[in-house]
Amino acid sequence: MIILASSSPRRAQILQQLGFEFRIEHPACDEAIHGIPIESIPEELAKRKALEVSARFPKDFVLGSDTLVFCDSKALSKPKNGEEAFEMLKMLKNKTHKVISGVAFCKNNEVLFSNYACTQVIFRDYADSEILNYISTMEYADKAGAYGVQEKGARFVKSINGCFYNVMGLPVALTIDALSCIEHFKEKE
Amino acid sequence: MIILASSSPRRAQILQQLGFEFRIEHPACDEAIHGIPIESIPEELAKRKALEVSARFPKDFVLGSDTLVFCDSKALSKPKNGEEAFEMLKMLKNKTHKVISGVAFCKNNEVLFSNYACTQVIFRDYADSEILNYISTMEYADKAGAYGVQEKGARFVKSINGCFYNVMGLPVALTIDALSCIEHFKEKE
Repeated sequence: MIILASSSPRRAQILQQLGFEFRIEHPACDEAIHGIPIESIPEELAKRKALEVSARFPKDFVLGSDTLVFCDSKALSKPKNGEEAFEMLKMLKNKTHKVISGVAFCKNNEVLFSNYACTQVIFRDYADSEILNYISTMEYADKAGAYGVQEKGARFVKSINGCFYNVMGLPVALTIDALSCIEHFKEKE
Repeated sequence: MIILASSSPRRAQILQQLGFEFRIEHPACDEAIHGIPIESIPEELAKRKALEVSARFPKDFVLGSDTLVFCDSKALSKPKNGEEAFEMLKMLKNKTHKVISGVAFCKNNEVLFSNYACTQVIFRDYADSEILNYISTMEYADKAGAYGVQEKGARFVKSINGCFYNVMGLPVALTIDALSCIEHFKEKE
């Protein structure tokens, strides 16, 4: 049994889909971060989340993760309202943006594994009316970049290059690499 | 309302996810095909399926689709048993294979749109024991290539290049292109 140090229902859904047994603990750490390259932020935040939960449950294996959406080197957060969502989806149109997720795996306040994965997402060309139709579904509300690739937001995506599940919030191959640490750890013990 | 000329539950799931209204009619056409390049087979079969259903329902818009998995220029069908599934998954390991889906859109026995999309799928390196664990879930049974990218089979995938939903059975951008024919058709009428 591992702990998923994340409040994201989509990360839980991916771990469940893969067949892993886990329980959820919500991390309570400061997410303000400065002075490191933009690509390194998700891995750093994944470590913070996993370490915060590990401090409370030192005997358990803890998986932390964080995902950021970047376009033209600018991070896109969750839109506050429909107007912000419209601006984001209009900006992403007919362009390639990046989704980067960091993954960290901890036990006893120690980081056993950390890394990050990047997926390039190429959006279709689409009309303003298509954005407005999408916004009316309210699906954008809790999504960084204002779209859900696993829901109706799939309609905006022409093509991706990398791990699909990374765009949803948890890169699969990297998570399997992280969890394989459990085997190595047990062999050492 | 359109007709989906396909017996695949995954194609229906994708159309539903995108928010399209449709009903299903199972196509009954000969799928034997010879003398055309391997990449053209899915588009040709998509046309056959859509035309067969269009002949029965000429007043409706009919969407047909067909998907093939290729590795080293060899088409991989649905495995007949666990041994065949094991051989396929062992062959795909640590390699790139292609998934090609054809899409065709018909009305009144006429093809209004047809095209195909290709997604490259890069598999992880994994142990035989991981294949055997997967086979024990029986998930491979109704899947060309012996894996389901939207289920536990996601664990084999390192990265993809192209449309994710194409690997599931229906390329999204191409389907939206096909369905946009309805608007052009109505404008002409």
